[in-house]
Amino acid sequence: MSRLLHYGSRLAALGAAAGTGWWFGFTSRELDGLPEGLFSGVFGKVSAAALQGYSMQAPAELAPLDPDVPRVTQIMQYGFPSLNNVRARADYVISYDARNRVPYWVCEHLTADRLAKNPDVDRSKCDFHEDPSIHEYFRSENKDYKSSGFDRGHMAAAGNHRLSQFDCNQTFLLSNMAPQVGKGFNRDKWNELESYCRKLTRSYANVYVCTGPLYLPRQEEDGKLYVKYQVLGPNHVAVPTHFFKVTNIQGWC
Amino acid sequence: MSRLLHYGSRLAALGAAAGTGWWFGFTSRELDGLPEGLFSGVFGKVSAAALQGYSMQAPAELAPLDPDVPRVTQIMQYGFPSLNNVRARADYVISYDARNRVPYWVCEHLTADRLAKNPDVDRSKCDFHEDPSIHEYFRSENKDYKSSGFDRGHMAAAGNHRLSQFDCNQTFLLSNMAPQVGKGFNRDKWNELESYCRKLTRSYANVYVCTGPLYLPRQEEDGKLYVKYQVLGPNHVAVPTHFFKVTNIQGWC
Repeated sequence: MSRLLHYGSRLAALGAAAGTGWWFGFTSRELDGLPEGLFSGVFGKVSAAALQGYSMQAPAELAPLDPDVPRVTQIMQYGFPSLNNVRARADYVISYDARNRVPYWVCEHLTADRLAKNPDVDRSKCDFHEDPSIHEYFRSENKDYKSSGFDRGHMAAAGNHRLSQFDCNQTFLLSNMAPQVGKGFNRDKWNELESYCRKLTRSYANVYVCTGPLYLPRQEEDGKLYVKYQVLGPNHVAVPTHFFKVTNIQGWC
Repeated sequence: MSRLLHYGSRLAALGAAAGTGWWFGFTSRELDGLPEGLFSGVFGKVSAAALQGYSMQAPAELAPLDPDVPRVTQIMQYGFPSLNNVRARADYVISYDARNRVPYWVCEHLTADRLAKNPDVDRSKCDFHEDPSIHEYFRSENKDYKSSGFDRGHMAAAGNHRLSQFDCNQTFLLSNMAPQVGKGFNRDKWNELESYCRKLTRSYANVYVCTGPLYLPRQEEDGKLYVKYQVLGPNHVAVPTHFFKVTNIQGWC
């Protein structure tokens, strides 16, 4: 997605689940309408699993797809960031990091029609549940998060999948979660960033969102750089140091 | 490779690049002929990128392949541990971890014939060199290791690839390296473990070796578990906490 980053997309990295501050960055377009205080600096070279170069040659903008093509084709129109442990859900696509028991990335495709209020969908009926498609050796469980102090933070946001109760339920698979600080992050700035992505559909016909965790190094007292992150519960679910969202917006309307 | 682990293979994890001690484990067979002091305990559930379950259903032993099938087919007869950033080299196969700039895993296939001394191959003519097949954003470079105090440790061992100078040269691609403590590890116990794998070809017709890094958590003073590892140079090359080798041995001879 490198060229997309330069020519038609926005990259955000917020930190941190572990309370180490936060960043926001962009490349060639100005940001507008973001939650106050969300922008603090330009983001540089990242260690993002999501940016592995498969889509380096993708054109800046592709023609809209026929709405009858398979949903996964629509969501992934600009290519797969990587190909490890990919699962195509009804309304999002995930690459699962079996080492860290959280996603590498999650891709979504937002449109105004798909985000319209739907009285048939009730988020409160959704339960966080294990993902049986992930081998039990590498699966996260509710007990990993219990009493940890961290939220089960959605990567594909529940509020982005309102076409059916089934679509919404699938965002509650634990494979779609990563540990996030609740107050001040998941329930605040991160939630605002999710809302911001949805609001982009008021201005653009297609909003493609790629979301995932980062594990960024910090310099310690010995002058060396270290990556350090907590792991939770018996399955050692990683607590990312930061999170990113890349949005690729298409079709000003 | 889970069933392989139980029925016909051996798993070794040595730590550490960062000097945190070492383990060695096995499952159902006894170990013999290992370097003195290499065995210290049974290895439990690991956070190994290499064990992602793709080969869970592989049979305990497959029939030998026709020697004329492509080399990659021979090396990977028991399946791919995972599918991210896979590169098939002339005599080994690698999955590259773009986040950490080291391999996820490297697979090799050793036989007595292939390991025979070859006067046409001179290891001293090999130079560590960048891997142009990895995008420059995610590539490790010699400058990352320079003055770091760590060796550029081969995952596919140079001594395992003696059929041609080209084969040996390919093990010096930096994508095949991970930072290792030199004295006491890379040049000692790790080297002995590599030799041990080669010696297995005296007793077995086919020795399949899967090698890679681990990032294992440790409990800190606050009682919580953390994964912590140093990263080197401008490309942030990860220093794994431990390394593993899985050997799958076939055809007692």
